[in-house]
Amino acid sequence: MALDLSGKSPKQVRAAIASGEYSDQTSGLCTDYAQANLVILPKDWAFDFLLFTLRNPKPCPLIEVLDPGDPYTKVMADRADVRSDIPRYRVWENGEVVEEPTDIKKWWKDDLVSFFLGCSFGFEDALLRAGVPVRHQEIGVTVPMYETAMPNQKAGRLGGNLVVSMRPIPPELVERADKVTGELSGAHGAPVHKGDPAKIGIKDLNQPDFSGPVPVNQGEVPVFWACGVTPQSALMHAKPPFAITHMPGSMFIGDIKTEDVTLLNPSK
Amino acid sequence: MALDLSGKSPKQVRAAIASGEYSDQTSGLCTDYAQANLVILPKDWAFDFLLFTLRNPKPCPLIEVLDPGDPYTKVMADRADVRSDIPRYRVWENGEVVEEPTDIKKWWKDDLVSFFLGCSFGFEDALLRAGVPVRHQEIGVTVPMYETAMPNQKAGRLGGNLVVSMRPIPPELVERADKVTGELSGAHGAPVHKGDPAKIGIKDLNQPDFSGPVPVNQGEVPVFWACGVTPQSALMHAKPPFAITHMPGSMFIGDIKTEDVTLLNPSK
Repeated sequence: MALDLSGKSPKQVRAAIASGEYSDQTSGLCTDYAQANLVILPKDWAFDFLLFTLRNPKPCPLIEVLDPGDPYTKVMADRADVRSDIPRYRVWENGEVVEEPTDIKKWWKDDLVSFFLGCSFGFEDALLRAGVPVRHQEIGVTVPMYETAMPNQKAGRLGGNLVVSMRPIPPELVERADKVTGELSGAHGAPVHKGDPAKIGIKDLNQPDFSGPVPVNQGEVPVFWACGVTPQSALMHAKPPFAITHMPGSMFIGDIKTEDVTLLNPSK
Repeated sequence: MALDLSGKSPKQVRAAIASGEYSDQTSGLCTDYAQANLVILPKDWAFDFLLFTLRNPKPCPLIEVLDPGDPYTKVMADRADVRSDIPRYRVWENGEVVEEPTDIKKWWKDDLVSFFLGCSFGFEDALLRAGVPVRHQEIGVTVPMYETAMPNQKAGRLGGNLVVSMRPIPPELVERADKVTGELSGAHGAPVHKGDPAKIGIKDLNQPDFSGPVPVNQGEVPVFWACGVTPQSALMHAKPPFAITHMPGSMFIGDIKTEDVTLLNPSK
């Protein structure tokens, strides 16, 4: 029987996660609170990654970075333990997933640096509140994501192309979608492109590179936003000897509300 | 005979510096253009330093970071050479100055990371343009700087206290000074304190920790701003085995105008 976490505080949900009672997706939990993508790297790679987030702020909205070896959050939450407070992790060696554990205590080392990056959950709530429909939520699938031909700003060993998410928007609501997402701190900013997918190197909207497609209705404009999968994609191309990330969809749930997030690298 | 560089472009001035023709202070040169503090560290220390600038954006306005081993600027100027284009450097070993050369080619290594941090020259021009007097300029001395009792946000091995600069302001102009500096991108933001020096741990205004004092006239308010000496002070306390900085006053002169500077870590 599924554990009922509705109405629980972030701290209570993290306790259920840490104890192993809950190890599933976090979408829909603690909806007022910020959720974050997690990337953990050895210190030798942490400088390149931190510089990558500064040079590419739109796909990499940076909320918190922990000191090397420090597993405890200060900003996202008061002393949450990054080693146990996420439902499920992915452990990577040389660009390949080697395990998908529910805690990473046995993998922890004193040189590991943890990065928390903003996620698009709050961003989609803001669109819905502004009356902009979110197609993939309507049909209950993951947002379609595409690798573009737009190169990232390189940082050391990290480069690759921008990954974008796409949401089909009725033409009369495109400007509103632009404004709402452009104003939201802690997320990916305004769209990077509106309209013709070919202009940013996407050959076929029906063939996303990550997850499945969604229907684009007659007259709707495909609108593209910088996507938090970009840094993971850059990392997996660069193949660091060791990395840990969250399992897609199983995010870190913070104690701060979405609207109170301030970024270390706000985009211009 | 002193070389006359008045009216020369940043590129021309940097060429005179690189050739060894000019090795003096940069105050008053290329006044419309951004000048920057330089910190160069081995990659092993670069992560701590980058994180320090993100956690302490007011004293550490970050304009550009170069990849490990890369000596050429992209943002501050088009391919300026960080090894030769500054009039005079300081080479540090274990927290002690070991040489003050006019170029650092013999010290260069493939793991060195160069950081460019905003400096207060543009900031003081903005005050003057707004009709706010700048006492130390009037009397031709360096701005007085004090170590406060306000701890920096630690990052790895770097910590220490905030260093501030002080400018005495007539009471009716304090609000204007606050507004002008708060709005200027690329500098240190609004004052961190106005009034009683004891409140931030400064015992005696007549005994600055760096440079000499300036007179505070009857009725004037001492106003304190976060100072770019903070990161150097933090570094020199932490004593990295190797570091290079610019010689105080001998800054890097960029091709970008002061008002066009955008920071990697804008302060809130």
